[in-house]
Amino acid sequence: MQTQTFQYDTLYNFTVDIFNRMGSSTEESESAAKVLLAADLRGVDSHGVARLSGYIRLWEADRVNAVPQIKVVHETPSTAVVDGDRGLGLVVAPFAMKIAIEKARNVGTGWVSVQNSNHYGIAAVHAMMALEQDMIGISMTNASPLVAPTFSTAKMLGTNPICVAAPAGEQPPFVMDLATTTAANGKLEILQRKNQEAPEGWVQDADGNPTRDANILKKGGALLPLGGDRDHGSHKGYALGAMVDIFSALLSGANYAPWVPPFPAYVPMPAKQPGKGIGHFFGAMRVDAFRPAAEFKRDMDDWINGFRTAATLPGYDKVLVPGDPEREMEQERRENGIPLLPAVVEDLHQLAGKMGVDWIA
Amino acid sequence: MQTQTFQYDTLYNFTVDIFNRMGSSTEESESAAKVLLAADLRGVDSHGVARLSGYIRLWEADRVNAVPQIKVVHETPSTAVVDGDRGLGLVVAPFAMKIAIEKARNVGTGWVSVQNSNHYGIAAVHAMMALEQDMIGISMTNASPLVAPTFSTAKMLGTNPICVAAPAGEQPPFVMDLATTTAANGKLEILQRKNQEAPEGWVQDADGNPTRDANILKKGGALLPLGGDRDHGSHKGYALGAMVDIFSALLSGANYAPWVPPFPAYVPMPAKQPGKGIGHFFGAMRVDAFRPAAEFKRDMDDWINGFRTAATLPGYDKVLVPGDPEREMEQERRENGIPLLPAVVEDLHQLAGKMGVDWIA
Repeated sequence: MQTQTFQYDTLYNFTVDIFNRMGSSTEESESAAKVLLAADLRGVDSHGVARLSGYIRLWEADRVNAVPQIKVVHETPSTAVVDGDRGLGLVVAPFAMKIAIEKARNVGTGWVSVQNSNHYGIAAVHAMMALEQDMIGISMTNASPLVAPTFSTAKMLGTNPICVAAPAGEQPPFVMDLATTTAANGKLEILQRKNQEAPEGWVQDADGNPTRDANILKKGGALLPLGGDRDHGSHKGYALGAMVDIFSALLSGANYAPWVPPFPAYVPMPAKQPGKGIGHFFGAMRVDAFRPAAEFKRDMDDWINGFRTAATLPGYDKVLVPGDPEREMEQERRENGIPLLPAVVEDLHQLAGKMGVDWIA
Repeated sequence: MQTQTFQYDTLYNFTVDIFNRMGSSTEESESAAKVLLAADLRGVDSHGVARLSGYIRLWEADRVNAVPQIKVVHETPSTAVVDGDRGLGLVVAPFAMKIAIEKARNVGTGWVSVQNSNHYGIAAVHAMMALEQDMIGISMTNASPLVAPTFSTAKMLGTNPICVAAPAGEQPPFVMDLATTTAANGKLEILQRKNQEAPEGWVQDADGNPTRDANILKKGGALLPLGGDRDHGSHKGYALGAMVDIFSALLSGANYAPWVPPFPAYVPMPAKQPGKGIGHFFGAMRVDAFRPAAEFKRDMDDWINGFRTAATLPGYDKVLVPGDPEREMEQERRENGIPLLPAVVEDLHQLAGKMGVDWIA
């Protein structure tokens, strides 16, 4: 598949224009575009502009509110619950993360659970807002049900990612961002496009049998929790995904478990809606609420150096630290542009026509 | 192997006597015995009285202080750092968790990172202290380095468990307690005793090759992070174990990564000690700092019911909710007693003689 490469600024301005035409304020359009494009920059191609038309379809289906009144509905000195008023998660999430950071500034840590939101892009971009404040950032979200818990054939959880970002000194920050499944759904979509099989342990069929069919989700199959099967710890991946659901939706009053609204606008809403929209959870911990930031960062540098210089398996240059591949990808793509598959380019082209925005290629 | 069964109270009183003879105050001996025995009750046999003589050997080697002055060395309204003064982790951990709970009472959440401690038993028992306060409890610890990160042959991390306990209403609470490895070291020890092979993906040999040898850790091998290998998400297990290390040790000033003091007293201390002792991390979040506890618990009941009644794989009765197996085990063992392997009974018998405590069998 031939890709076409676009400069970051070109895609950013295009995305801002699209959200503007949807009715978002300029400030919110810019915030949303920045969050969405962070996925393309960091190599999470499934969560970037490839999804832009999907967000627009949610707005057309009246599942996304382009002019939300996002507000705090409950708070204590270290906590808040935010109602996203059905806004783009791309806009609601930074709003909520800013509150977490502000509370951390005041009382050491801040924790914000969010209801009535939509999909928020990649988890990392929100958690990383804490880094420049010398804080540890945490970001989680629930998502469309695609994952069967251990011993089940039912899709009960989303890929429910967890991101933790911690600052270092001379070293780049530690940034982990992981779906609580063996593989993120985006990885499966790549195999579908390439007509390749999935490794064992990624998916099961509608009856719960192991399969390597990358298209099995369309046939009643499910993604498997991190671990893959019981012998390899799938009950742990299931528990981690459950934790994300509890923090994101049970604490905020959002929809949970199989009742989380689906991302594709053509999939009907679940008949039962125990809460509002989808849920997120954010945390910020001021490093110097525990110990002087300079000491923490010195130790983080030492920690990171220890892993980078650890003995490697034959054929490997070095041990990676969480965040390394995405940071290297971002440097490369900021310089040389973001490659998009023909199907994505065509989708954006059509979107430009529909929304009355100048085409960029 | 024939086991011998002991009533909980018998083992509890015996353990209190042993810690008393070590020099702990009665209050601290009782607290430590309660924590240690929680492992036996919940079926985590590797972390209960089977380890009692190991704690005593650490005290004999002057690595455990029987009369610690545990204190808060830094705090903000929602955070604290506790110095365990080389005390038993079994005693230091409840001290720290109480502070987290107290801070949550005041400002919504409380977060305590601990330095200069020792092994703290099972993670769950500390997190579960939050449940009766209608709080979510969180507990993590770093541990002796046994785990190789993805692409490495070096043992850089412990099995670094994460526990989250969340209250429900009519349902029992959600309690996840997981080592961030494919399998906990205790599971490997059981296979060693039975002379059985490990499933693939649990361990690698000294050169990083896959192996099923359950004794491989004694030959330079390593446990593998949850996921097992890169294709199955081992980089995620590695990242989760790293997160536990950062929260437990980098935030507190404890030893981290391969420099965490080993549990076996015969293993020399690492030459480098970047911090003090081992580290833990505790959190407490007041449910009603987010939304009314009654609403949260009603939704938790609905959530739990949803999973319990989800469609099962052929041959399985029901989908388990995290905490189910351990709670059922505790009910069974409180009623019928705790079975101990002959080697454990003999070890306790010898310990009784050494410490001048009446033998119980």
